[in-house]
Amino acid sequence: MNDMARFSVNQMTVRQLSLPELVKSCAGLGIGTVGLWREPVAEYGLEATAALVRDAGLTVSSLCRGGFLTAAGPAAREAALADNRAAIDEAAALGTDTLVLVSGGLPDGSRDLAGARERIADALAVLAPYAAGRGVRLAIEPLHPMYAADRCVVSTLGQALDLAERFPAGQVGVVVDTYHLWWDDRVAEQIRRAGEGGRIHCFQLADWVTPLPEGVLTGRGQLGDGCVDLRWFRERVEAAGWTGPVEVELFNEGLWGRDGNEVLAETLTRYRAHAC
Amino acid sequence: MNDMARFSVNQMTVRQLSLPELVKSCAGLGIGTVGLWREPVAEYGLEATAALVRDAGLTVSSLCRGGFLTAAGPAAREAALADNRAAIDEAAALGTDTLVLVSGGLPDGSRDLAGARERIADALAVLAPYAAGRGVRLAIEPLHPMYAADRCVVSTLGQALDLAERFPAGQVGVVVDTYHLWWDDRVAEQIRRAGEGGRIHCFQLADWVTPLPEGVLTGRGQLGDGCVDLRWFRERVEAAGWTGPVEVELFNEGLWGRDGNEVLAETLTRYRAHAC
Repeated sequence: MNDMARFSVNQMTVRQLSLPELVKSCAGLGIGTVGLWREPVAEYGLEATAALVRDAGLTVSSLCRGGFLTAAGPAAREAALADNRAAIDEAAALGTDTLVLVSGGLPDGSRDLAGARERIADALAVLAPYAAGRGVRLAIEPLHPMYAADRCVVSTLGQALDLAERFPAGQVGVVVDTYHLWWDDRVAEQIRRAGEGGRIHCFQLADWVTPLPEGVLTGRGQLGDGCVDLRWFRERVEAAGWTGPVEVELFNEGLWGRDGNEVLAETLTRYRAHAC
Repeated sequence: MNDMARFSVNQMTVRQLSLPELVKSCAGLGIGTVGLWREPVAEYGLEATAALVRDAGLTVSSLCRGGFLTAAGPAAREAALADNRAAIDEAAALGTDTLVLVSGGLPDGSRDLAGARERIADALAVLAPYAAGRGVRLAIEPLHPMYAADRCVVSTLGQALDLAERFPAGQVGVVVDTYHLWWDDRVAEQIRRAGEGGRIHCFQLADWVTPLPEGVLTGRGQLGDGCVDLRWFRERVEAAGWTGPVEVELFNEGLWGRDGNEVLAETLTRYRAHAC
């Protein structure tokens, strides 16, 4: 694959574009791969989205997101499992083999990190075989530690691998996302470990810029605007054996406020300048 | 020591109090130990502060902060070393044996985390003997990874220990601060390691609350308001041999906007309820 063929745009990067607009913009720029999110897919319609991307000849690199598996009560746990089975079905319908999991934060009022982490493993034991039966792999995404309380108690690549390695590599792997992992002095060795085990299921790029916005959700930097050595990461995941898509996923109010086609073209330019 | 004798208030928790107000408030509440910051000390005067706390019979648990040792240029590096020598002298003048180091972020435009970390080690090689000559220990504070870009490239206790262990334990140790470390699944083993090596030089408490404010500097929660298991941390640092002060350091706009005496009394109540 050449570098253009490796590029994938996650639709959240240009969330201002509708799905037909995104598909058209990708065609205009020669982009052949997209990462999708469940909510806009549901809004446009699952079957309609599947037909749209298939007819355009687009590959779907990943579906975001399942997860949120840390609830303690039986009803909430059963609801989470049902929702994840639906997400797996949706991934299969969209023709992607990768469902990204954001594992979930601490339940309200809880201080029990270890317990929350163990409940994720319990849920994966149920979900991984279900996903495998539908040709879908579960990709645990370690999120930056600033999200540990309210979004994801899996905070490092090492920790994600500890979880994933309890299951077959074809069923459960990890996401390597530069935004979440760039600060970790152990990340190079953990990328090697992930590669050796065949556990890299998704590779995502975003840059780190400061100051962080309130709530810290929508401050991911355009490639090249921040302090992450994106090329260093790409070299390491490729040395670890990754030959799949390089997906750019930015959550950025500034980018969302601009013309989506312009942002997509800029993102492609930045990818070539900073990650190839 | 009983629990009351272990309590220390870092003056940033009640920054709205002047130094004489802080000393008076501590006397009224039976608090015998304070952590100080260089800026308010300089404003009141170094000798005047030293006399004030000495005359009140207060112990100074730590001085914040030295550090910011990641600059690449020779002039900036020399200025940082000079500033840290001054901070060491100030710690000695105030009668504390512990200078807290916030190591510094990436220089503007740099993406070289490994290089920045190595420059910290180079600076410690110069500063540690200087500090030892004045009876002061350098305490490397790992800061939460959300500060890695702009404040501190030392993000985990394990990483801080990797740095500290290049030097004698009496010269360079670490700060265990619950706010920065609570999310880390390796923290229990690293606290044990720190204790075995005699490297715990300072123990600080703050709670984690969400949503984080813009810039993420002033959102540390009052003890008990968040999701950190403070007692779990205290048990582990004590099992690792720590018998020194338990210092509460909160940066919180809401607390700063209230009456300082009331906040200090509340902090003591929360300490008893959640960390004893």
